[in-house]
Amino acid sequence: MSILKNDRFLKALARQPVDATPIWVMRQAGRYLPEYRATRAKAGSFLNLCKNPELACEVTLQPIDRFELDAAIIFSDILTVPDAMGLGLYFSEGEGPRFERPVRTEDDVNRLFVPDAEDSLGYVMDAIRVTRKAIAGRVPLIGFSGSPWTLATYMVEGGSSKNYSIVKAMMFDRPDLMHKLLDVTARAVIDYLNAQIAAGAQAIQIFDTWGGELSPRDYREFSLKYMDQIVRGLKCENEGRAVPVILFTKRGGQCLEHIADTGCDALGLDWTTDLAAARERVGERVALQGNMDPALLYASNERIRQEVKDILGVYAGEPGHVFNLGHGIHPEVDPEKMKVLVDAVHEFSAA
Amino acid sequence: MSILKNDRFLKALARQPVDATPIWVMRQAGRYLPEYRATRAKAGSFLNLCKNPELACEVTLQPIDRFELDAAIIFSDILTVPDAMGLGLYFSEGEGPRFERPVRTEDDVNRLFVPDAEDSLGYVMDAIRVTRKAIAGRVPLIGFSGSPWTLATYMVEGGSSKNYSIVKAMMFDRPDLMHKLLDVTARAVIDYLNAQIAAGAQAIQIFDTWGGELSPRDYREFSLKYMDQIVRGLKCENEGRAVPVILFTKRGGQCLEHIADTGCDALGLDWTTDLAAARERVGERVALQGNMDPALLYASNERIRQEVKDILGVYAGEPGHVFNLGHGIHPEVDPEKMKVLVDAVHEFSAA
Repeated sequence: MSILKNDRFLKALARQPVDATPIWVMRQAGRYLPEYRATRAKAGSFLNLCKNPELACEVTLQPIDRFELDAAIIFSDILTVPDAMGLGLYFSEGEGPRFERPVRTEDDVNRLFVPDAEDSLGYVMDAIRVTRKAIAGRVPLIGFSGSPWTLATYMVEGGSSKNYSIVKAMMFDRPDLMHKLLDVTARAVIDYLNAQIAAGAQAIQIFDTWGGELSPRDYREFSLKYMDQIVRGLKCENEGRAVPVILFTKRGGQCLEHIADTGCDALGLDWTTDLAAARERVGERVALQGNMDPALLYASNERIRQEVKDILGVYAGEPGHVFNLGHGIHPEVDPEKMKVLVDAVHEFSAA
Repeated sequence: MSILKNDRFLKALARQPVDATPIWVMRQAGRYLPEYRATRAKAGSFLNLCKNPELACEVTLQPIDRFELDAAIIFSDILTVPDAMGLGLYFSEGEGPRFERPVRTEDDVNRLFVPDAEDSLGYVMDAIRVTRKAIAGRVPLIGFSGSPWTLATYMVEGGSSKNYSIVKAMMFDRPDLMHKLLDVTARAVIDYLNAQIAAGAQAIQIFDTWGGELSPRDYREFSLKYMDQIVRGLKCENEGRAVPVILFTKRGGQCLEHIADTGCDALGLDWTTDLAAARERVGERVALQGNMDPALLYASNERIRQEVKDILGVYAGEPGHVFNLGHGIHPEVDPEKMKVLVDAVHEFSAA
């Protein structure tokens, strides 16, 4: 493996001093980039793009080639895991992701199994291997998964949901069944992420997109508990270097102390939590990643630069901060705004 | 005016002892009720229903007739205010509310004015007067408005929004313009709510549905500031009795202390904030209203009753709690579940 030339991101996650604050952006390989849309068109479908290691590598590197980002994140989808568990993932135009066989009954839950990651999700590991070669040590490569609760919402609802009525009814009325579903999903995620690490992922992020839809009590019991299980189940080292884990619960700002208790290395923050307050609450225990409002990228360059300065001011050069948006970059954003953002983070934090 | 026979709700808001915890439910007059759907069909359109005082009164009373609720809330829509400000509200099938003339430019903002409430929103005041007569003192009647920021999102975007890109771009790049828009809207809301109080509203709730989409800093500057202005601008007494004000910011759990600082009487809480923690943080200063996850109404009767018991346990008979869902009741809910909820609140809190 090539020597890592830029390890700011890994150092910041370990709360070690860096020459400038590292930045990567959720969904940095995505629809706001014309070159992404071209590769996506070439692939024919979103799932083809995920399942073709060469094309997945291509889109993973596009934002790295265009901007001075400090980390890449492997291009994939969180729903590949339930797909490998036999649920039949497909995408219907305008409706988003759907499962052919949603999990609704006790029998459905009992049929779930931990898939062999290299076998049924080998295309992700192949994409990681191809990308690690192509990236040639320029920046570290992040692997990822959805949280078990977040995956469960899609598995039970059969797709995206507005009110989470089916999955929450199962959670409220059959907590035993829900725990069984979450446990097998957590074990599948552990195997999957360890295979990603073995294939070359140098850091891991868990996306808990829908944990914030739960009450704090239910969040701890049905979402955080299984992220905790994952943190404890992951290989923490590879290629002689620690593999840090970032937990990102969207809308999880009221539960930061509990998230930090898992022993993860960093918390991802959305923009609805004050970074300075979060640092005060948990910043001695973990690094923090975030948390600019993605809508700032609709503002003027000067306003973006001002915001970057304000956010960087919270750490003021002290270690433990990875810059990111508080949520994925919106598809309508002008890529030039991304350049303004990335350059401002480096310029102001190096100064 | 008839003597108020059930004043539990007003007493709880004043943090006075009550014989049982009062309950009302956001959107209690709504689509989950077959009798609502019948009146709505008779009205021809949602806007006709809002603008016809007799029909608005009819649907306002439907949940009061069916369940032992402790308050009624006048049936209306938050977007009647910008409509009266000249923006041209209409509803397009499947798309929700839209404005014919969204506010996008400096000229658009300068054209905004404070409408004469009795003149252009007289149908709401008529609905309140008709309803107060019909309700004959059984329970108090709540008046309401959207918060200026929440109204602004619709006024600028022209309807519902996913990313708030247009309104946030204005906020970030032209804070002066946004403040001007919010100030005239706040003054319109003050006039509107004072007219509601004069017409007979016995308590006021401000719905800040989208304040939680802002960072805490932006929330304080662009949403809370104008709710504060409203609280200070309202008549606090009518018919010899205090008219309490409830501020409900959905997803506002991280800013409760600041919301309580306005001097409002109560905070509405969604279910993503822990009620006991909220009580500890601000419960000596304000009453708290909430906060059961609306999805509990998809669960079994026993599970609903258990949840009610758990939530009531936080106050354990001490004053200052109004029971409510953490958000509007979902349209798909079986009305029988609402009965289970309401009866459980009274049964367990009276015991």
